[in-house]
Amino acid sequence: MKSSVVLLSGGLDSTVLLTKLKAEGRRVVAMGVDYGQRHSREMDAARAICARLGVEYRVADLKSLAGFFGGNSLTDHTQAVYEGDYDEEGMKTTVVPARNLILISVATAWAISLKCDSVAYAAHGGDHAIYPDCRPAFAEALDKVVQISDWHKVVLERPFVAMDKAQIVRLGAELGAPLELTWSCYKGGNAHCGKCSTCRERREAFRAAGVPDPTHYEED
Amino acid sequence: MKSSVVLLSGGLDSTVLLTKLKAEGRRVVAMGVDYGQRHSREMDAARAICARLGVEYRVADLKSLAGFFGGNSLTDHTQAVYEGDYDEEGMKTTVVPARNLILISVATAWAISLKCDSVAYAAHGGDHAIYPDCRPAFAEALDKVVQISDWHKVVLERPFVAMDKAQIVRLGAELGAPLELTWSCYKGGNAHCGKCSTCRERREAFRAAGVPDPTHYEED
Repeated sequence: MKSSVVLLSGGLDSTVLLTKLKAEGRRVVAMGVDYGQRHSREMDAARAICARLGVEYRVADLKSLAGFFGGNSLTDHTQAVYEGDYDEEGMKTTVVPARNLILISVATAWAISLKCDSVAYAAHGGDHAIYPDCRPAFAEALDKVVQISDWHKVVLERPFVAMDKAQIVRLGAELGAPLELTWSCYKGGNAHCGKCSTCRERREAFRAAGVPDPTHYEED
Repeated sequence: MKSSVVLLSGGLDSTVLLTKLKAEGRRVVAMGVDYGQRHSREMDAARAICARLGVEYRVADLKSLAGFFGGNSLTDHTQAVYEGDYDEEGMKTTVVPARNLILISVATAWAISLKCDSVAYAAHGGDHAIYPDCRPAFAEALDKVVQISDWHKVVLERPFVAMDKAQIVRLGAELGAPLELTWSCYKGGNAHCGKCSTCRERREAFRAAGVPDPTHYEED
C-alpha cells in the first residue's frame, strides 16, 4: 500500500488532497506547522478534519524559530492584516522566508522515519508567483533533494499542480471532503471575515466551481 | 562586504570555517541547532567560540520536532553510544533523518531575513557517505533549491569540500582558530572520552596535520 505524509493547513486545498489520497486507499498521516501564526483556527480546523477522516495529525512546533524569520503579518501580531486583493505589495507581507522549504524538510524527516513513499502537498495552478517557494521550479528542484535525503527514497508530490482552486473545490465536493470544516480566513474570528484576500479567494472558488458555499461569512 | 550565516556545531571543522570567513573580512553570524542531543557540550563550545571571535550565535531550537525524527543514538538517550570505528553499522545509529536538510532550511530562512549572500557549512572531503545528506550530490541539489527559495538570492557554500580533516586542522592552526575550545566527543563528560568514533577521528586529524593536539582525553 502506498503511504504519504500530507501537508495539511486546514484550508480547502490540503483538505481535498488528504481526502483524495485516503479515498485512493493510501496510508496517510497529516502534518501541520505552528510557526507562530496569529491564530490557531487553521490548526483547529485541521484537527477536526483529521478526526472526521480518521487520520493521524501532528503539528511541527516551529514557534521557537520566530527569531530567524523576521517580521511579517502572519507571525508579527503588531502588523495589520492586508485586506486588498492578492496584488504584489499586499502578498509580500504574508511571506515567511523559506517557509515551504522548512515545512517540507520536516515532513521529509517524518516520511523517512515512517518509511513513507512520499510527501504530498496541495500546490496548485493558481498559486501566486509572489511566493518564490510556490513556483514549480522550486518544487521540482526540492523534489530532487528530497529523493536523495536518505537511503530510503521519498518523493515530493503535488497532485493538484495542474488544477485551479475551483477544480479542487469541485473534486472535494465529489469526494465528500469535509469542506465545511476547513478554514481560510487570515483573521481569527468566530467566522470567516469575508473581506481578507483569502476569504475572497475562497468564496470565488466555490462560486466558480458551482458548489454551494457552506461558509458563514461575517460580512453577509 | 560579503555576508554569511555559518553553521557552527562547535566541532573542529565549523570552527575553522567561521574563523576563516571572519578573517577574510566577511560579516558572519553563526547558527547552531538543538535537536535534543544527549548533551549540550557542543553548544557550550560554540558559544565560547563565538564569544572569542566576537560573532553573533543563535541556536535553532528543534527539540519539539523529536517526534518526527524516530529513534537514534544522538537524540534517544536510551541507546548506547557506539564506540567502534566509523563503519556502516555504527554510523547508521547516529543519523537524524534529513538533518542537514532541516538545518540548512532554517539557516536559509535566517540568511534571507538578514539579506546575507550565503549559508556556509563545513562539509569536507572526509565526510562519510553513510550520511546520505552529506553527499556532494545532495549539497549540489540543495544549493539549487536555496538559490531560488526567495527573491533575495542566497547560495550554499562548502569551502572545505576539497579538503580533508587534517588539512582543516592545519588551516585552523595557521589562522589561530580557537581549536582548544572545540568539542567533538559524542559523550557529554568533563573531557573528551578519547574512545568514541569522533574522538578517534579528532585525535587522528591533529596527528596527521602535525599540529599539537590541545585536547585532554579521559583515557590518557
